[in-house]
Amino acid sequence: MDNLSMLTDLYEFSMANGYRQTIDDEQGVFDIFFRKVPDSGSFVICAGLQQIVESLKDFHFSKQDVDYLRSLKLFKENFLDYLSDFHFDCQVSAIPEGTPVFSREPLLTIQGPLLQTQLFETLLLNIMNHQSLIATKARRITFAAGDKPIMEFGARRAQGPSSATFGARAAVIGGCASTSNVLAAEKFGIPAAGTMAHAWIEAFPDELTAFEKWADVYPDNASLLVDTYDVLKSGVPNAITVFTELKKNGHKPVGIRIDSGDITQLAKGARKMLDDAGFPDTKITASNALDEHVIQSLLNEGAPLDNFGVGEKLITSSTSPVLSGVYKLAAIVQNGKMIPKIKVSASREKLTLPGLKQVYRLYRPNTNQAFADIIALNDEVLDRPMDVVKANPIATERQQSIENYDAKPLQEKVMDGEKVQAELPDVFTIQKRSKQMLKEIPSATQRLVNPDEYPVYMTLKLAQLQENLVAEEKK
Amino acid sequence: MDNLSMLTDLYEFSMANGYRQTIDDEQGVFDIFFRKVPDSGSFVICAGLQQIVESLKDFHFSKQDVDYLRSLKLFKENFLDYLSDFHFDCQVSAIPEGTPVFSREPLLTIQGPLLQTQLFETLLLNIMNHQSLIATKARRITFAAGDKPIMEFGARRAQGPSSATFGARAAVIGGCASTSNVLAAEKFGIPAAGTMAHAWIEAFPDELTAFEKWADVYPDNASLLVDTYDVLKSGVPNAITVFTELKKNGHKPVGIRIDSGDITQLAKGARKMLDDAGFPDTKITASNALDEHVIQSLLNEGAPLDNFGVGEKLITSSTSPVLSGVYKLAAIVQNGKMIPKIKVSASREKLTLPGLKQVYRLYRPNTNQAFADIIALNDEVLDRPMDVVKANPIATERQQSIENYDAKPLQEKVMDGEKVQAELPDVFTIQKRSKQMLKEIPSATQRLVNPDEYPVYMTLKLAQLQENLVAEEKK
Repeated sequence: MDNLSMLTDLYEFSMANGYRQTIDDEQGVFDIFFRKVPDSGSFVICAGLQQIVESLKDFHFSKQDVDYLRSLKLFKENFLDYLSDFHFDCQVSAIPEGTPVFSREPLLTIQGPLLQTQLFETLLLNIMNHQSLIATKARRITFAAGDKPIMEFGARRAQGPSSATFGARAAVIGGCASTSNVLAAEKFGIPAAGTMAHAWIEAFPDELTAFEKWADVYPDNASLLVDTYDVLKSGVPNAITVFTELKKNGHKPVGIRIDSGDITQLAKGARKMLDDAGFPDTKITASNALDEHVIQSLLNEGAPLDNFGVGEKLITSSTSPVLSGVYKLAAIVQNGKMIPKIKVSASREKLTLPGLKQVYRLYRPNTNQAFADIIALNDEVLDRPMDVVKANPIATERQQSIENYDAKPLQEKVMDGEKVQAELPDVFTIQKRSKQMLKEIPSATQRLVNPDEYPVYMTLKLAQLQENLVAEEKK
Repeated sequence: MDNLSMLTDLYEFSMANGYRQTIDDEQGVFDIFFRKVPDSGSFVICAGLQQIVESLKDFHFSKQDVDYLRSLKLFKENFLDYLSDFHFDCQVSAIPEGTPVFSREPLLTIQGPLLQTQLFETLLLNIMNHQSLIATKARRITFAAGDKPIMEFGARRAQGPSSATFGARAAVIGGCASTSNVLAAEKFGIPAAGTMAHAWIEAFPDELTAFEKWADVYPDNASLLVDTYDVLKSGVPNAITVFTELKKNGHKPVGIRIDSGDITQLAKGARKMLDDAGFPDTKITASNALDEHVIQSLLNEGAPLDNFGVGEKLITSSTSPVLSGVYKLAAIVQNGKMIPKIKVSASREKLTLPGLKQVYRLYRPNTNQAFADIIALNDEVLDRPMDVVKANPIATERQQSIENYDAKPLQEKVMDGEKVQAELPDVFTIQKRSKQMLKEIPSATQRLVNPDEYPVYMTLKLAQLQENLVAEEKK
């Protein structure tokens, strides 16, 4: 991968240079959060932290980069020198990858020299918006498929190479079992999946020959694509011929893939033919324009499918292709003193949460059943009972009191300067943890359509700080 | 950028290894084409060729890659040896970047060892689908904006780093004037654009101080973001105060940016205040969730805007985030003899075009007015008059005769082995050529909504070859 330090909007450089010339001794605190969940869901599966940590650890500018920036004739030499000799000098806290997270929760908080924190905005948003988007879509699709594995098949339709590769990683975080993308498989330790395309069939004089040649080369990996000509009249009978021969020679045929037509009818027909021919253990894979809704209806119709290959609708989250995460100033540190900051906007909905914060997941005492999240100032001790206010500033019935709960903090320390403090687990460990955390939130929150809203509160102290700052701005 | 040779679906490797063991001496001819245009448009602006050529020239596998592939226990050593010592040995022809192209036209054709041509499928589709998608969206947006420049602002919402960077390049091919993405600006020679974010304003005690500090640092680049508090009551008056001071000191203020609220009303109010204060030359920039339709309605309402910053809706083509280009076998070369191939499918619409082909743009004689394209076999001489058939196999009134025309071939030779034969122009040269070619096609074809269909024909000879192969398959 390129050095990504230059993947920054020009205005970040302009502001950073401006800070260098004006308030160079101040620190900034920025939060990443989102307001809307893709596909009208109720939560996002957060992802991207590993690439963020790797990018920040490696943050630097080559001589060529600095020369390019100088050529823009916008920046002072003291700023270009700073970039030439860049040392990452911030603290990062974040919610671990795979966690189901909700609107307005600070997913990542970074504190450090204002110049530095400003420079990271674009890159951090790019990575976290993308990977969280795809992990969230993958979770929807794997949820629809229940215990049947999903193979991520989208590389050819992804929005560029890193969209394919980091998208495959995010898809596994969201529950996928494997990927067709060999670069992602190698890079992240994901099982590589897939068999043959129609081109293989067409490259031989007929379908049976193509299948036979395949079985010669891959006697223990014979998963055959049966829809090139006619699934039930040609593909499946030819597959059975080849499977019979393989079995005779002591091999175990894998199964078939159907990539077009009425999948339910074809799979039912194929299943019966395979069973009748003595191959009840062979698998049937479906692919072709699948998403969570198509998979759900195939399974509702009783299609005897064993796994699914999902392409463009997963890798681009095509029905909702943007997660609009933002990076907002929460505080300035001036002479060692933290001054909370707020962004007021014409729409009250866009009000930000000031100060250094922590997010807690609240559980019914001594259970694993979460019932709400709460955002607090990070030096607060949570009371029992605790008066709380909905974090959404336009919610009705905003104030409530919560009596009994256990609270688990969600943000962890991740970096202290270049030193990485958090564990960055492999992708299947993240997936496992994500599945566990999903079991802890109410099932009504997890519906694909019209999910129940999960309550996100803030403490009274945070709410009061917010209101005070709003009042101050109004003056 | 990573070596992208591993960005391939596993089944491409499986098939390539299979060819190595079976029909290793055969060659393949593959075409890239698409069937549907994003956003129900009538054409696509093709893009991505430069990155394709660079990737193919550099195609190789490291020892680590080969070791990883060996660890999958799927491939024979003679195949892994082939990969270790890979030499690109194909011919590539393609339609130059920036060309408006239509459904079913072969955008890129590659001929070479079947093993190699199979391996490139995923990577070539990934690059071309992505960049053509964004170039097409950019063309829609710049079309809506007329002569007002569009700045590409989407890096933070792009689907990963390469989506941002190559997306910015594609956006310029489609007509954008500049990008906020500094990596893309440096890499592709695009002007870098942008000024300040709300964070700059919030980092200072009040808006006027923030503007004054900015003007101190950037006296000749004072474009001020005026919507942090109240555009007309605070932002514009403060901007005018600062502009007046700048003017007194001999500087030329640039303008303001509005990023929220009712842009038309705010821009009208701001324009009047700026004019009345003696700054008629300052520019007003609009941003915030813009796309082709919003821009068109702002301009229809008479909003006095000078340029636009467009973010997520451009960089993800969010209303239509997938271009479903495909890579289909058109022929096999066996013992030096070309055998045309076809893919028959349950739906006649998906019929492919067999053989090595060329696409011609047909012009009214001695004019620059194109009226149709025609796909021919590449050794055909076009007749006058010429009997033609619609390339869409489900079109009504398929057969016609064309009397008078000039024909220009669209595909050019691009690579002969590792030797690059085509010119790969810089991105603004491509943009200029694209604009010229857009002038040549009918304006009714270029409407944003309900565009007229541009006719794409094939020669009778190609149509007959297709029908013969269909008949053969049916046997």
